Amino acid sequence: MIIVMKPNASEASIKNIVDMITAKGLEAHLSAGKEVTIIGVVGDKSKIVEQNLEIAPGVEKIVPVTETYKLANKKFHPEPSIVTVGNVEIGGKDLVIMSGPCAVESHDQVLETAIAIKKAGAKILRGGAYKPRTSPYSFQGLEEEGLRYMKEAREATGLPVICEVTSLEAIESAVKYVDMLQIGARNMQNFYLLKEVGKTGLPVLLKRGLSATIEEWLNASEYIMAEGNRNVVLCERGIRTFETATRNTLDISAVPVIKEKSHLPIIVDPSHATGVRNYVKPLAKSAVAVGADGLMIETHPNPATALSDGPQSLTFPQFEELCEELRPFAALMGKSL
Amino acid sequence: MIIVMKPNASEASIKNIVDMITAKGLEAHLSAGKEVTIIGVVGDKSKIVEQNLEIAPGVEKIVPVTETYKLANKKFHPEPSIVTVGNVEIGGKDLVIMSGPCAVESHDQVLETAIAIKKAGAKILRGGAYKPRTSPYSFQGLEEEGLRYMKEAREATGLPVICEVTSLEAIESAVKYVDMLQIGARNMQNFYLLKEVGKTGLPVLLKRGLSATIEEWLNASEYIMAEGNRNVVLCERGIRTFETATRNTLDISAVPVIKEKSHLPIIVDPSHATGVRNYVKPLAKSAVAVGADGLMIETHPNPATALSDGPQSLTFPQFEELCEELRPFAALMGKSL
Amino acid sequence: MIIVMKPNASEASIKNIVDMITAKGLEAHLSAGKEVTIIGVVGDKSKIVEQNLEIAPGVEKIVPVTETYKLANKKFHPEPSIVTVGNVEIGGKDLVIMSGPCAVESHDQVLETAIAIKKAGAKILRGGAYKPRTSPYSFQGLEEEGLRYMKEAREATGLPVICEVTSLEAIESAVKYVDMLQIGARNMQNFYLLKEVGKTGLPVLLKRGLSATIEEWLNASEYIMAEGNRNVVLCERGIRTFETATRNTLDISAVPVIKEKSHLPIIVDPSHATGVRNYVKPLAKSAVAVGADGLMIETHPNPATALSDGPQSLTFPQFEELCEELRPFAALMGKSL
Amino acid sequence: MIIVMKPNASEASIKNIVDMITAKGLEAHLSAGKEVTIIGVVGDKSKIVEQNLEIAPGVEKIVPVTETYKLANKKFHPEPSIVTVGNVEIGGKDLVIMSGPCAVESHDQVLETAIAIKKAGAKILRGGAYKPRTSPYSFQGLEEEGLRYMKEAREATGLPVICEVTSLEAIESAVKYVDMLQIGARNMQNFYLLKEVGKTGLPVLLKRGLSATIEEWLNASEYIMAEGNRNVVLCERGIRTFETATRNTLDISAVPVIKEKSHLPIIVDPSHATGVRNYVKPLAKSAVAVGADGLMIETHPNPATALSDGPQSLTFPQFEELCEELRPFAALMGKSL
Repeated sequence: MIIVMKPNASEASIKNIVDMITAKGLEAHLSAGKEVTIIGVVGDKSKIVEQNLEIAPGVEKIVPVTETYKLANKKFHPEPSIVTVGNVEIGGKDLVIMSGPCAVESHDQVLETAIAIKKAGAKILRGGAYKPRTSPYSFQGLEEEGLRYMKEAREATGLPVICEVTSLEAIESAVKYVDMLQIGARNMQNFYLLKEVGKTGLPVLLKRGLSATIEEWLNASEYIMAEGNRNVVLCERGIRTFETATRNTLDISAVPVIKEKSHLPIIVDPSHATGVRNYVKPLAKSAVAVGADGLMIETHPNPATALSDGPQSLTFPQFEELCEELRPFAALMGKSL
Repeated sequence: MIIVMKPNASEASIKNIVDMITAKGLEAHLSAGKEVTIIGVVGDKSKIVEQNLEIAPGVEKIVPVTETYKLANKKFHPEPSIVTVGNVEIGGKDLVIMSGPCAVESHDQVLETAIAIKKAGAKILRGGAYKPRTSPYSFQGLEEEGLRYMKEAREATGLPVICEVTSLEAIESAVKYVDMLQIGARNMQNFYLLKEVGKTGLPVLLKRGLSATIEEWLNASEYIMAEGNRNVVLCERGIRTFETATRNTLDISAVPVIKEKSHLPIIVDPSHATGVRNYVKPLAKSAVAVGADGLMIETHPNPATALSDGPQSLTFPQFEELCEELRPFAALMGKSL
Repeated sequence: MIIVMKPNASEASIKNIVDMITAKGLEAHLSAGKEVTIIGVVGDKSKIVEQNLEIAPGVEKIVPVTETYKLANKKFHPEPSIVTVGNVEIGGKDLVIMSGPCAVESHDQVLETAIAIKKAGAKILRGGAYKPRTSPYSFQGLEEEGLRYMKEAREATGLPVICEVTSLEAIESAVKYVDMLQIGARNMQNFYLLKEVGKTGLPVLLKRGLSATIEEWLNASEYIMAEGNRNVVLCERGIRTFETATRNTLDISAVPVIKEKSHLPIIVDPSHATGVRNYVKPLAKSAVAVGADGLMIETHPNPATALSDGPQSLTFPQFEELCEELRPFAALMGKSL
Repeated sequence: MIIVMKPNASEASIKNIVDMITAKGLEAHLSAGKEVTIIGVVGDKSKIVEQNLEIAPGVEKIVPVTETYKLANKKFHPEPSIVTVGNVEIGGKDLVIMSGPCAVESHDQVLETAIAIKKAGAKILRGGAYKPRTSPYSFQGLEEEGLRYMKEAREATGLPVICEVTSLEAIESAVKYVDMLQIGARNMQNFYLLKEVGKTGLPVLLKRGLSATIEEWLNASEYIMAEGNRNVVLCERGIRTFETATRNTLDISAVPVIKEKSHLPIIVDPSHATGVRNYVKPLAKSAVAVGADGLMIETHPNPATALSDGPQSLTFPQFEELCEELRPFAALMGKSL
């Protein structure tokens, strides 16, 4: 932590800051320049953070130098983590594709999808039973009935299943049926929910919020991990920008940035990032090439009748073709698909 | 709803769309231009929305022309709404200032604040008992104990009180203590929570999400209102942009836009919008001048020791001075303070 | 300038940085913490900036602590500047309103406008002769003919005139006709143009770029001032964000931020910021209340036939009403209109 | 073009719009719904665009349905264009890598770079002689001297060369020395400059503006093409968002979007997009995999002493390794490197 003083800061105000720091048992290192004086704080900064030094006389700004996330931080855990979901390892040698419909609609829809995507190469079945929709008048999901269909599809195919949860109630149901819990973009800073999924011990897929910085995202993962649950996988799914040609802007750079700052696996969701079916294939390839550990791709037996996100869903033949084309890219990255 | 066809759309694909529309009992109006054909849909579009026309052959894009929010829409409710909180009316003749600490810290802190802000002119006491913090290692709030202090401050001063709620559990506690519930920016699209505060029937302050469009914000209010609870007040508190000189960018235009699109009252929170104490006063003035129905301003007996958001909190003398300076601006806008 | 080292930076890499700093005649102040070592650099940092310390071994990041703009910086020029345009002072006791059409269309249009806005209270006539338009097929302006009409309107009314310039050629013409040059948002970082308007010595209105930070904006003003031309007025006109209800998002906080960081006057343009006529009045009021030194407001004798930006232009009666309503707000801020 | 009327629009106001449209020789198609009436305009909309229908009584909004760019539009030119620079074809079977220093610093630096990048596989030498820098106190480029070094490097190696131009003066010099002109991000809407590079007939690399939508970008290319110069190549180099972990946010989706909307070739610049050397390699791979026609990569004999953008520049061995690793990705995309 560095304290930058105003150019005209008095000797007294500088001394005041130094005294506040040393009173907490920390060390203050002064660099007095011609224009500006800076004070480096050495020691456990959590002791000083409640002093609100920003508003002490003579202070211009505070510059943090260490990250607030610890458990997710690569500095303290240099080896990449592998998260195990059923018999699938995310972050290891496989390129893990999660696929399925945006919303669970029926037993047959889910089962049919599970069979098709497994055949094509997907490793995990996704499907939404609790749907966060912009308007209250849109389809809100089948809830527990939907979770049951997911479980039945797993029993029939052996694919582990993942569902989004949006409340404690949903978590309590979901733990009975699914292998992995998903926190959606809109709930990335629903800290209450993060703690609750942390307590379940189940693996968690944490999607990035629409306007979350990478640092806030890692802090959100810290909420889950601080409950003792280290099984967190991150998912980049596009951020909100001024561009309207795509629904969101896929921040492809997030993959190497996360790989540098954290040991957690990261996958990419090109379906939600663009909202346009034609862009899913090129973006899936770019995600594999940039080093993602997996992909989340929406599929539907008949996108034209999908109750949610039909326009961005692939048909099964399209998905099969996609997996086929991704295989050599995965191989170049040392991954199997 | 308008369907724009691709330039090369075949007769058959146009006929297909028209058939899909009329099959649902709606009317299709064709405008066949030299470059492009457009199809206007007349009737209840909810019947057609699940057809995913975007991906039907020959379709370029769908342009919605009516808003999805109905209860919050000024078109169907032209008179401005007044929301009553205890003995206070928001949206009426008063400029309603809500003030208090970011986080409730102690009985004395809250009581002292309530007395000071009431004297200065504030009408509602605010204070956070459940704090959504970026890092799990920051102070998370006193929870039910904090709610109790708020209630005691109301009993001592007569000021209605407002607290943020972040979970069903928090709502269940809060309804026993407070007069108004707040949904924070990070939970604006926590649709589960919106429905639950809707069910309580208590007035709700709905803060705008950091990256929420005005349309999404009004749709979020629709979630609360669709539960039968019409007592919604909106709060603009800054959106996330590329600018870093302020914590967020106060979207001052949101006030006239909301006044044009909705009948709901709207207040402005310059403290969270900027994160900088020195900017609170000028922005508070601009919010009054632009036509806001009220303000939310953070105050603290001693900002230097505040457990949360100290740097943006006003001292009591600063708050009193602010109210004094705001009074003539309020008067120009036909409001009392 | 502060250099933050990586947690695992070796003794040798730290010594290397210290040596690079001292070799340039600067001082290096070390703060060696348990987690991280930081090095404060004291002295003229321009000597070290070309060393690219970011990529030296062991360096995590560089944190600048002083601003790169000097002439525009309030730290070195604490008194607010007043910029004189003809007989008008911007930054002084007057609230200076610049008004006129987006594009100059004819002699009569400009003259009629000049007379009407002068009567209502405007102090400077604006009008575009060189129009930067998104599409090459839109009206591009009357160029020198337009400048001549502006000059004739000044001669008839005594109002100083301002025109945007978009090339050296345009500058060379404009200096013969106008009292103030405008650099538009799209050219804010057209550094060549900034230097050229700097050389003219004429007062310059520098609009903020659509995605320019306040720091970049002040650096752009520095380009003009570094040519010896101190007569710079800033103009906030909205930034680009994800919100689409308004054409741009007026960053009203820019006014107090500029007042804190710079001595230059700042005005606000609500017409371009919103693109919607109905929002101009409330935003103009908010701009006055936040402390702006003036306003730029588009007017047109008949907005319905304007060749550019008609939808955001006020009629003369609307403009007169606006000035009337602004007067008491200006008075509260200690300004005359 | 579609005109959406307000819900309460009178018969008279609807008739008024229809009359305005038919008076211009266009057709008006009415769709009168229960909630809202829409009017489709069929015919050459340029005739009606100056009528400012947005502000006619009863109009809610105008929805454009055709793009304003024509020459760059794939609809009217379905085959992908190939742009020839010297002996290099961009948009054809080669993955074209442009490489070189951010700023030309000396004859030797440029020559040494040209030899090294040619050996590694680059096809075009880049180097900045006119540098747009945020601060006027940063190195501004060698100007004509720099152009001469570039030409000498071409003569020695046979590599075509590209330089950024920032003024008419720079264009007049550059045409004597270089094979391709670059318009930088900050000048993407410097329409004067676009017309001037259009007139030269030389191939132009048009970088995307920091806050330019894809539609604005294509309209900017239209300015060049409207001068008769069809040799335009687009370059995605990152847009400005709220994320600060990278200098800009590479909008990787821009590649498939451009491929769908335009016939122009597009390349990607991961160096400027991220500003961080470690991220250049993964992003270069993702750009190839997403379908880019080429890359622009900054290299420097000794990045630690580069006068501009050193931290994002690759050394020659790093660049060689990059090309080596890109080769199989290019092959998968059917391109040679």
